[in-house]
Amino acid sequence: MNLLTRDALAERDLRDPLAPKRQAFSLVPGEIYLDGNSLGALVASVAPRMERAVKEEWGKGLIRSWNDAGWYPAPLRVGATIAGLIGAGRHEVVACDSTSVNLFKVLVAALRMRPGRKLILGELGNFPTDMYVAAGVAELMGAELRCVVPDEVEAAIAEIGDQLAVVTLTEVNYKTGRLHDMRRITAAAHRAGALVAWDLCHSAGTLPVQLNACEADFAVGCGYKYLNGGPGAPAFVFVAERHLAGLRQPLAGWHGHARPFAFAPDYAPHGGIDRMLVGTASQLALIALEEALTVFEGVDLQQLRRKGMELGDLFIAVVDQELAGHGFGLASPREGSERGSQVSLTHERGYPIMQALIARGVIGDFRAPDILRFGFAGLYVRYVDLWDAVAALKDVMQTRAWDRPEFTTLKAVT
Amino acid sequence: MNLLTRDALAERDLRDPLAPKRQAFSLVPGEIYLDGNSLGALVASVAPRMERAVKEEWGKGLIRSWNDAGWYPAPLRVGATIAGLIGAGRHEVVACDSTSVNLFKVLVAALRMRPGRKLILGELGNFPTDMYVAAGVAELMGAELRCVVPDEVEAAIAEIGDQLAVVTLTEVNYKTGRLHDMRRITAAAHRAGALVAWDLCHSAGTLPVQLNACEADFAVGCGYKYLNGGPGAPAFVFVAERHLAGLRQPLAGWHGHARPFAFAPDYAPHGGIDRMLVGTASQLALIALEEALTVFEGVDLQQLRRKGMELGDLFIAVVDQELAGHGFGLASPREGSERGSQVSLTHERGYPIMQALIARGVIGDFRAPDILRFGFAGLYVRYVDLWDAVAALKDVMQTRAWDRPEFTTLKAVT
Repeated sequence: MNLLTRDALAERDLRDPLAPKRQAFSLVPGEIYLDGNSLGALVASVAPRMERAVKEEWGKGLIRSWNDAGWYPAPLRVGATIAGLIGAGRHEVVACDSTSVNLFKVLVAALRMRPGRKLILGELGNFPTDMYVAAGVAELMGAELRCVVPDEVEAAIAEIGDQLAVVTLTEVNYKTGRLHDMRRITAAAHRAGALVAWDLCHSAGTLPVQLNACEADFAVGCGYKYLNGGPGAPAFVFVAERHLAGLRQPLAGWHGHARPFAFAPDYAPHGGIDRMLVGTASQLALIALEEALTVFEGVDLQQLRRKGMELGDLFIAVVDQELAGHGFGLASPREGSERGSQVSLTHERGYPIMQALIARGVIGDFRAPDILRFGFAGLYVRYVDLWDAVAALKDVMQTRAWDRPEFTTLKAVT
Repeated sequence: MNLLTRDALAERDLRDPLAPKRQAFSLVPGEIYLDGNSLGALVASVAPRMERAVKEEWGKGLIRSWNDAGWYPAPLRVGATIAGLIGAGRHEVVACDSTSVNLFKVLVAALRMRPGRKLILGELGNFPTDMYVAAGVAELMGAELRCVVPDEVEAAIAEIGDQLAVVTLTEVNYKTGRLHDMRRITAAAHRAGALVAWDLCHSAGTLPVQLNACEADFAVGCGYKYLNGGPGAPAFVFVAERHLAGLRQPLAGWHGHARPFAFAPDYAPHGGIDRMLVGTASQLALIALEEALTVFEGVDLQQLRRKGMELGDLFIAVVDQELAGHGFGLASPREGSERGSQVSLTHERGYPIMQALIARGVIGDFRAPDILRFGFAGLYVRYVDLWDAVAALKDVMQTRAWDRPEFTTLKAVT
């Protein structure tokens, strides 16, 4: 392979059909943001939209805005927009609560759909909250959570067989970026008579997820990574239409009621996806997410996927070329098709190295014990950013810039 | 009693020590807002605070703001501020999720603390979501929910005795404004060996709630009524310190973990109130709520309570004086000490009457089948507003202004 150069990458930006989307974001001049897999960048139009929401809709419209500003149906409206990004029907997704709370709802519902089956299958190395929630559900429902390494999920499904109620997996691993085969695993679970709940936190907004084509049962995901909905944005939950009618989720709240404003004493779940709602959702949070989602208008998700994969491939290539001998390892699959839109490196001094890199304006993040994560949100990351990021990292290593007290002190949030 | 006059009420405003607080709010000129018991008015400083949160903290600080802008501890910080308004310790309250979700957590936790006891006692006429959540918890935990009329709660506690696990009540009824005696009922429940979970949705920010003085076990409440946190603001949850160490709430998420950034595979709940947290909370929603709470600085809650009670008393007096013969009834206790900061009237044409009143710039709301609700948030409602509101209502009745198609058509959100 020929040596990669900054010019060659800059040339790719000129040919990138997604390049104009970068203008929709409010980015910090001179910084390279490779952490959209943790917190998406600010879509510029969100700021004026929020100002209007606060001053006009809340300040002036007040309680009337539940009708007049479209507040009440916002969770469904935002859900329908997200549905278009994850291969779901418009009436199968709703935006609400957090990913953890939504996973709780679907896991309890799934166990109720499979009475007699007492096993939840999870994967080791999944984002911890998924395992905590699943363990909590298991305890509550008299079930058992069994976790296996990702490669053994299919074998475990076959082995557990008719004891298996539900499988809970994250499509793209938060640490390594490793990608599960949703279609294949879902089919395997269905052959065993089990259901699957997919966590799309690191998929939605960057991969062309095809929930219905894969015959997925349930999915959850967050709004603040590739969907750019803002810090702690509302999450979403998907329930396949075929499961909706009989679904009994445990968090029975008034927004999930068939007729919430009848104020009836007994709970009667809404016939549709609304039944996944519980309490009143933050409108400010929903409005920020809804506005942020407008950036996806006109985006070809296949093209976005290709770019995300290519950014990862090229990042690895530049790292190989420029950082050899500096002690970095690759925690992500080298093959782009087996990876989400992130590349994780390993280094025993990962924490201070990442802090020193951030101090130079290249923003990634660190995950214990030794992972440096770099996310490639194709809507605003440029090819040339890869070169500049690796150049900064090379400089950090060559000058031992990481070996300073301010970079070795662990921050509260890593 | 002498006839009340507008001038006499205006005179009271001049002597009102809370009157200057009204300047902190962004109110619509010419409107009278008597719906702060549903959605609090906008605290003016929230708008610039939100602009900074969006443009600076999110847009520029990005992922760094979890540390640098104090995002991560926001739920605890906001909880500590709310604690000061409800007679709780600073480390006993956290702001998170919705009231419904928080009630679910504490009811499951309470049942786990009382193994063998299978009864949840609720009250008929409570806000429906509380009953839905309690019924959902009962189903999940193999328990039973029994509901009695508010006046019979104490008798029911004594009767159920050692079968009673937990009582779930709302301190101030959403429809009638009727106030429970928290101290007395809590003591009765404790005598039976049971726990009490109080819903403070219509109390926090308007009554001098004394959770610890009443030896309350649990409480939940919302941030968007008298706390003015914005539409769907984060809710809060209180757990008495004596219960914290052993508490097992069912929604085990990473923000409730003892060491969330260790990303450990097994759940280990945080030692303190943090264990009530689940997923990542909306920072935009928390920031709006936190800024709104600054309006309570320097407010004497006893004074606020006196004003709220007096506003209600005087409203009833003006209604009696001005609206006799128009078919209105009183759904609230006439005695101020038995009522929260709201007065509810009844009228068989309640819905169109309220719509016609709103069209005249007097904002209350309607609750089926016949309730017109008027809330008196003492931080921004003036005494003279009472007169003007009733005058507008009188005009609506005298001119039959309510008898028009645009007022009789039911809106989606009532």
